[in-house]
Amino acid sequence: MAAPGDPVLAELRAALPADRILTDTDVVGSYLHDEAEWAEYGRARAVVRPLETAEVAATVAICARHGVPVVPRGAGTGLSGGANAVEGGIVLSTERMRRIVEIDAGERLAVVQPGVVNDVLRAAVAEHGLWYPPDPASAPWSTIGGNVATNAGGLCCVKYGVTRDYVLALEVVTASGEVVRLGRRTAKGVAGYDLVGLMVGSEGTLGVVTEVTVRLRPARSAASRTVVGFFDTLAACGAAVAGVTARGLQPAEFELVDRHCLQAVNEWKHTGFPDDAAALLLARTDLPEPAGGQEADAILAEFEAAGARDAVVSTDAVEAEALFDARRLAYPALEQRGDAVLTEDVCLPRGRLAEMLGRIDEIGGRHGILIATVAHAGDGNLHPLLITKHGDEAARARAQAAFEEIVNAAIDMGGTVTGEHGVGLLKRAGMRRELGPAVLAMQRAVKAALDPHDIMNPGKAIG
Amino acid sequence: MAAPGDPVLAELRAALPADRILTDTDVVGSYLHDEAEWAEYGRARAVVRPLETAEVAATVAICARHGVPVVPRGAGTGLSGGANAVEGGIVLSTERMRRIVEIDAGERLAVVQPGVVNDVLRAAVAEHGLWYPPDPASAPWSTIGGNVATNAGGLCCVKYGVTRDYVLALEVVTASGEVVRLGRRTAKGVAGYDLVGLMVGSEGTLGVVTEVTVRLRPARSAASRTVVGFFDTLAACGAAVAGVTARGLQPAEFELVDRHCLQAVNEWKHTGFPDDAAALLLARTDLPEPAGGQEADAILAEFEAAGARDAVVSTDAVEAEALFDARRLAYPALEQRGDAVLTEDVCLPRGRLAEMLGRIDEIGGRHGILIATVAHAGDGNLHPLLITKHGDEAARARAQAAFEEIVNAAIDMGGTVTGEHGVGLLKRAGMRRELGPAVLAMQRAVKAALDPHDIMNPGKAIG
Repeated sequence: MAAPGDPVLAELRAALPADRILTDTDVVGSYLHDEAEWAEYGRARAVVRPLETAEVAATVAICARHGVPVVPRGAGTGLSGGANAVEGGIVLSTERMRRIVEIDAGERLAVVQPGVVNDVLRAAVAEHGLWYPPDPASAPWSTIGGNVATNAGGLCCVKYGVTRDYVLALEVVTASGEVVRLGRRTAKGVAGYDLVGLMVGSEGTLGVVTEVTVRLRPARSAASRTVVGFFDTLAACGAAVAGVTARGLQPAEFELVDRHCLQAVNEWKHTGFPDDAAALLLARTDLPEPAGGQEADAILAEFEAAGARDAVVSTDAVEAEALFDARRLAYPALEQRGDAVLTEDVCLPRGRLAEMLGRIDEIGGRHGILIATVAHAGDGNLHPLLITKHGDEAARARAQAAFEEIVNAAIDMGGTVTGEHGVGLLKRAGMRRELGPAVLAMQRAVKAALDPHDIMNPGKAIG
Repeated sequence: MAAPGDPVLAELRAALPADRILTDTDVVGSYLHDEAEWAEYGRARAVVRPLETAEVAATVAICARHGVPVVPRGAGTGLSGGANAVEGGIVLSTERMRRIVEIDAGERLAVVQPGVVNDVLRAAVAEHGLWYPPDPASAPWSTIGGNVATNAGGLCCVKYGVTRDYVLALEVVTASGEVVRLGRRTAKGVAGYDLVGLMVGSEGTLGVVTEVTVRLRPARSAASRTVVGFFDTLAACGAAVAGVTARGLQPAEFELVDRHCLQAVNEWKHTGFPDDAAALLLARTDLPEPAGGQEADAILAEFEAAGARDAVVSTDAVEAEALFDARRLAYPALEQRGDAVLTEDVCLPRGRLAEMLGRIDEIGGRHGILIATVAHAGDGNLHPLLITKHGDEAARARAQAAFEEIVNAAIDMGGTVTGEHGVGLLKRAGMRRELGPAVLAMQRAVKAALDPHDIMNPGKAIG
């Protein structure tokens, strides 16, 4: 993409050590898109992989002068195309900015560069008796910078909140290449608008995050109980979720795995889950004993009242992990069959979970597309997985039609088109329908205020 | 202020029922300022008290056409001058918009008009087994709309977070008089920038909040234990706070009352607190038994290790309330002596609490101003109360100098100039110093994007 004598590249080479800049076509090719199936991407002029904030600032300043798009990228595990390259732009990968700057146990905070992997941070703070809760399924690979960009959720957020709830402060390189510090190190603060909260979830469209200060919690006790139940109907499953909520119970994880996922995991791993059930619910409690046991029993009672079979409380960590494998393995089990998996991410009012699952089945049936669903049931956050064979273009077109219908159904039912994956490219049309013109105009006014020349990840999300 | 034939007033009268508009000078006078001591305020053209969103929209639209400032106002309990009238503007009081629109126990949310009083909401949701945690000291009088405008904190936020953590969605009348809905009813959502979080804490400078959707928690068990300890030195007190944090304990309230407050309460109510101590710490645990008892014992051990005297765990609700009276009565005890009380609100890293208390004593001593301090110790959020006699202008000047020195000390120590009261008028200079020019420019760009003609509460906070 980069022509010989490209002035932008020449300036970047003058400003940065040589190893920071990648231009080899094959290497650059591996940075052109994230894991969003079927999202378009352009050719990048180069990939820049800085080590320090000053290098990010220099890169953005050069791009700003030349009006060249900058696409910030973490580990590339995104599922909406938010990190996909823009034609003629620079991909700015923060993967090498992986220093843990500080862990302060007294203030319960950590300061990290954006390229620190989620699980690495979690392990590091655990050594200080602390816990960083946000746990997207990508935690072994995804970076804190990417988590911040998408306001990542995960399993624990049903009880402990999402990434935004844990970000105290950010260092950001603005669209003009200026380095600013937003937020604070104190527990509270109301001096000015919450620009930290605005940056979290902005998908790289307002600046590049170069340092993140996160709030931490005390480590939890290891003891936990897992409640499991299989349901013959989606309605019964929905009733169980509603019952748990209505009783004031607060499982630390509360997941759903539908029969298509159970079947795929059984086929792959011969796990022998009852796969004639409509869905499996998994709830984990992390309260100290005896409250944990009481909560688990209360959840079990709600499962049984809703008509669960094979419902049981497990206190065995190995057994519990085996049950959660049904959740974790669903995606690879579907994917390893050589299938293309388009991952959806809609979030509904909890009470409409069963209704939405029914709609998804109906939509899949009508379009002749297998749609397997995992869900953060306690949040009403569903991940329908639309399965097609690679290369089957007709099926792909049908899947994309089904995808848009699911998005519209979520809006119709008072939900949102994206619970935790972000808008990126795939949800732009849905987001516009969800927000409506007046709110969209406000969103764009904010974007224009902070990135007047539209160089930060243009065309993504609100851009 | 409103001249006969005032065209703005004429348009308001044509658009709204007569009882919505107040112009009597004495009545209007009672709406010109909040409870911030010594903050300036202007004369208002009129006070408008709408009942419905459409009336708010009509009012703002008329003001927008004429370039007349709009100052939104809740109950007027603010402590930074954020609701103070602007010369020639309209005060838009939401006090009559006090309908609880909906309580949805299944989704754990409530929808209210902005004039609903905090304690009224808390009582209403309690009937559904639910809890709205944010509990500013003004909860018996302050409104949810005002709480949203200032991102109000309170005692519970040390464990349960501040107002922003509980606002899911807002209906807002924008600066052009348009009605928009921001946010969502779902547990999670990342469709677009977080404009809800941006509005929370924006002190009426970006629009008028006309409806608030709040997230609720299951009600807590009534059981609680209170740990109390008196400390001879501020250093010992700071060590106790640090010890509790380092041990991973999470009291649901964790308050500090200094000796000046103890003395004032003793003088007023003859309570007999040991007022030769430097400070009293009060910690409340709300875990279910036996975890609650264990946590209380662990807190007590930290108090004693730091050198507390008269340290004890109380399980008696009446006794516990009597202890918390020392905290609650501090302000009225100081005020009832006929004194002017200027309330400060700085937030420090927790570890620097004792150091800051020492600085406050030093500053007060040097300026000859009595400064009594209460603090949300667990948050590092201090409320120094600067006491002068009404009418003593020399003392007032010295108090204002001391106030600015406290603000600067907070910045120097890595803290913020306002933890929960807001910037309003009193903290504008401090906020500018805290944020610095680059961040201030970003803040102002956001303000200009959403209120291009600067009619929303101009001159307050970031404006």
